[in-house]
Amino acid sequence: MKVGIIGVGLIGGSLALSAREHIPDVELYGSNRSSANLKKSMDLGLIDHQLEDAMIQQMDVVLLTIPVDVALDRLVDLLDEVNDNALIMDFGSTKGAICQAVALHSKRGQFLATHPIAGTEYSGPAAALPDLFQDKIQILCETQKTRPDLLEWAQDWFKKIGMDLREMDPIEHDHHITYVSHLSHISSYMLGKTVMEIEKDHSAIFDMAGSGFSSTVRLAKSSPHMWIPIFKQNKENIRKTLTQYIHNLNQFKTLLEADKFDALHQHILEINDISRILEGISNTKTNK
Amino acid sequence: MKVGIIGVGLIGGSLALSAREHIPDVELYGSNRSSANLKKSMDLGLIDHQLEDAMIQQMDVVLLTIPVDVALDRLVDLLDEVNDNALIMDFGSTKGAICQAVALHSKRGQFLATHPIAGTEYSGPAAALPDLFQDKIQILCETQKTRPDLLEWAQDWFKKIGMDLREMDPIEHDHHITYVSHLSHISSYMLGKTVMEIEKDHSAIFDMAGSGFSSTVRLAKSSPHMWIPIFKQNKENIRKTLTQYIHNLNQFKTLLEADKFDALHQHILEINDISRILEGISNTKTNK
Repeated sequence: MKVGIIGVGLIGGSLALSAREHIPDVELYGSNRSSANLKKSMDLGLIDHQLEDAMIQQMDVVLLTIPVDVALDRLVDLLDEVNDNALIMDFGSTKGAICQAVALHSKRGQFLATHPIAGTEYSGPAAALPDLFQDKIQILCETQKTRPDLLEWAQDWFKKIGMDLREMDPIEHDHHITYVSHLSHISSYMLGKTVMEIEKDHSAIFDMAGSGFSSTVRLAKSSPHMWIPIFKQNKENIRKTLTQYIHNLNQFKTLLEADKFDALHQHILEINDISRILEGISNTKTNK
Repeated sequence: MKVGIIGVGLIGGSLALSAREHIPDVELYGSNRSSANLKKSMDLGLIDHQLEDAMIQQMDVVLLTIPVDVALDRLVDLLDEVNDNALIMDFGSTKGAICQAVALHSKRGQFLATHPIAGTEYSGPAAALPDLFQDKIQILCETQKTRPDLLEWAQDWFKKIGMDLREMDPIEHDHHITYVSHLSHISSYMLGKTVMEIEKDHSAIFDMAGSGFSSTVRLAKSSPHMWIPIFKQNKENIRKTLTQYIHNLNQFKTLLEADKFDALHQHILEINDISRILEGISNTKTNK
């Protein structure tokens, strides 16, 4: 079986490792806009061959693991090109636009939109991990529009990788994911920015930053090549969520300025309930 | 040697474990406003005896590990009570007010203000860890005001615990720590609040929240009993920093609304430099 990976980075490279382990007789083809990263993915043994444009027709499965704007640009052409039994899947963090782009395509049945809730703040093939998807959620959108045999193959592979499958409407996906992923990235970027611009004496940051700072600011290392296209595609949801976040910060500030510490205490007690929700997350994931 | 710990929680309990290991023939006395937690700290073997108010005079060292408002309330009375060779140390996250409170005390030389850059989002004696302070920074304020023999004893113990000592002016401490600790907590609390109030369907959060969300929202589990007094004492620094953070979020939102994605991309590239700073932190800490 020939699997082509367009964009062998953190996600594409980790999928390559998972394909190597779980798909019998797999031959892995890969491409990358950076020739240095393409070479690295060959050196690391993530892929066997370079994927040239002319080879798309020979692929049994095509994995689209590039920034969401480029994925959106390329998907229609790729669907046109693939052979009649090939499956194309994308793994981006937004799902509305990409599902809409192929809604009326004659080969819509050969496409599956997915979003693995897995990743790190690093990128590139060297960041690929063999167990990145183990015990992670894989969201599948509009599964009823994918050809049943191709869908079944994909579901089977994802389960073998150790993923827990969920179905979700693409519009609903983009709404929900804003709160639990996109907003976290923005709050982290802006935290990094605030600290860096006010705190000119960097050695003081070195000395005083504990694990709390490191964990809240970790996502600020994430690449804009991946995230700007996400912010662009999910602009409306992000605008609303960000407005609410800023409102809450302003409310905190107003209470602080008015010395209303009892009200702040009460707010935080309620927020502490996030603890129960986060335990729910880890319980859900480890029990499956 | 008799060591009294006022408030045997995460920090006090971890100091108890470190005292047991590194102070020869230590006898540990402890108190807690919660009788259940006091019992737990006895059951866990963190302390040997309950510390009654009348016993303060017998202590060689008194560790003040309670919320910063209560520490501020009690320190002057404790200094009055201790014998003439005892050392009192506080371990709170604000240093200006407590140093000011004892500035003119006749026994000022028997006090040392400290802030260990160590902790977790959990509290209480069950959260105590034997290696909580290993390879962590310990900030000492106004060391020139502490009696040299007592200071030397404290520095020696902290080094044995594995801490890396830094001296800092208390006002400067409160300014710096706002950026790298207090702001992280507020951004995390408000992120938790925003997600919880908009996202009524909690199961969707369970499914879609990855490690990015968990790490940015981790600090939102922190107890208001500890944090409200910190926000109160450090109000002015927090107000300024929060204003800057909100300004940056508004700027991000304005650029997003105006579709200025190139400018956002450039901003984020600059913020990515936090990576180098964070590596600096971990290098600094592991190299020592």
